[in-house]
Amino acid sequence: MKTIGELGEDGLIAKLCAGLATSDHVIVGPGDDCAVMGDGENLTLLKTDAVVEGVHFLPDEKARRVGWKAVARVLSDFAAMGGKPGELLVTIALSPQVSVGWVSDLYEGMTACLGKHGGVIVGGETTSLPVGSPTIISVAGRGTVRRSQMVTRAGGQLGDAIYVTGILGGSITGKHLDFTPRILEAAWLTEHFQITAMMDLSDGLAKDLPRLSLMSKCGFQIDKKALPLSEGASIQEALGDGEDYELLFTSAEDISASWGSQFPNLRLTKIGELTPGKDHELDGGWDHFNR
Amino acid sequence: MKTIGELGEDGLIAKLCAGLATSDHVIVGPGDDCAVMGDGENLTLLKTDAVVEGVHFLPDEKARRVGWKAVARVLSDFAAMGGKPGELLVTIALSPQVSVGWVSDLYEGMTACLGKHGGVIVGGETTSLPVGSPTIISVAGRGTVRRSQMVTRAGGQLGDAIYVTGILGGSITGKHLDFTPRILEAAWLTEHFQITAMMDLSDGLAKDLPRLSLMSKCGFQIDKKALPLSEGASIQEALGDGEDYELLFTSAEDISASWGSQFPNLRLTKIGELTPGKDHELDGGWDHFNR
Repeated sequence: MKTIGELGEDGLIAKLCAGLATSDHVIVGPGDDCAVMGDGENLTLLKTDAVVEGVHFLPDEKARRVGWKAVARVLSDFAAMGGKPGELLVTIALSPQVSVGWVSDLYEGMTACLGKHGGVIVGGETTSLPVGSPTIISVAGRGTVRRSQMVTRAGGQLGDAIYVTGILGGSITGKHLDFTPRILEAAWLTEHFQITAMMDLSDGLAKDLPRLSLMSKCGFQIDKKALPLSEGASIQEALGDGEDYELLFTSAEDISASWGSQFPNLRLTKIGELTPGKDHELDGGWDHFNR
Repeated sequence: MKTIGELGEDGLIAKLCAGLATSDHVIVGPGDDCAVMGDGENLTLLKTDAVVEGVHFLPDEKARRVGWKAVARVLSDFAAMGGKPGELLVTIALSPQVSVGWVSDLYEGMTACLGKHGGVIVGGETTSLPVGSPTIISVAGRGTVRRSQMVTRAGGQLGDAIYVTGILGGSITGKHLDFTPRILEAAWLTEHFQITAMMDLSDGLAKDLPRLSLMSKCGFQIDKKALPLSEGASIQEALGDGEDYELLFTSAEDISASWGSQFPNLRLTKIGELTPGKDHELDGGWDHFNR
């Protein structure tokens, strides 16, 4: 019998999702940044995302930054659908030996992020783990998106330009904790342009772009020399480091000119285009089980 | 600095919830079985709940039963508000050494429960834990409740009778894995009677009844000899074992007569009443951090 490590993350998810039932008002099921459901113009987004001590943050990291990250990752996924945050639930699994101060600071970081970017915490739970277990913070919740602004990973068309916001690579030096979920940017993009496909970059461009192109039934071609590099990052790091939490999206429209006047402090880079190719491989990126 | 273990679960939750912001359309925030939000007659329930290997299930337990339990716990909370299941997200945190077959069986158990009681899985995530870590399954999601049928823990009135469904105690022999979420029963109760307060029994009557009475600003008096005992269970076990997943509710109406013809195979027992007393203590029950 295969282990999870041998099968890998994408393989596992594909296997688990294959047999799932659905219901009439589910518009987008498993496999995108969020699930989408509802009728009418205002749709509901559902998302869950966890951070694990030793995987997503170091044991001696400031709890406030961990809290920010735990919430911002979910907000980043709402943004990736063109949506906005609503109500969140927070699950904390931890050893009884963790200090109350650490958990208070964690909540401070979460509420700071929500105060800045929208959304409220409406519940959750705490559950105990054996002494010595890694602390886990799982954030689940509801966002909203207007039907006219909803973007999935699946709508990319042949010839569409591929864009990324911000700069890529080297997030381990700090950005992976303190990043800005691109809610405003996604709202502006989806209001003013025909964005055909979008996702947030969590596992690295090398892992995430193939996912988007596969769901859009296209290949892709990128100009690696055009990648917007973080200071000191190599092209390979920009492709593979992950945790950039920038938007990756496609459009047939030229967005760069208006972008500059709207968001003068955030780069937007056209890095390539969707092609008829069937090659979905790019070297690098992060697999949760198969490292 | 105090540890979580010293503060205890209820103390920790109270501390964390004290400073939370809210928003206009949140009707019930942290502290009840579910959060409730929305406008109009059809409201949204949000809930998250996790099961942990070694705490909620033994390492050698059949994965199918674990999956059933993980989902049924959340459905039981929807029932406790008078609601029904909608769309769920499943987070699995586990070591790469877990077999793919185990996870497949887990999903089988989850979908079996949903197939029987309603609700669909629309997404989730898998995340890796260090080798040897306990497996954690967290289920979050959305339910629905009609405003006219919504019941919180806070509406109990002086003199209301206190009822429990089913039998209590000894769930460790199997029921804690295979229980039936009381969705049908709660729907019938809230449609036909004025149910003033309700919750599901997860930590044991001794822990849960004081929570309900405290939120309803009442005391309580129960007849311990009237408690409906599972076969072989003592009164103390019925009070303290936990994981009964039965409904605990209050009403000024006499429900027992019509109950018997509606649900002939499930007991309903009047165990006491809400009083002006201020005593919220009952000996027993389960605290996640302070055992």
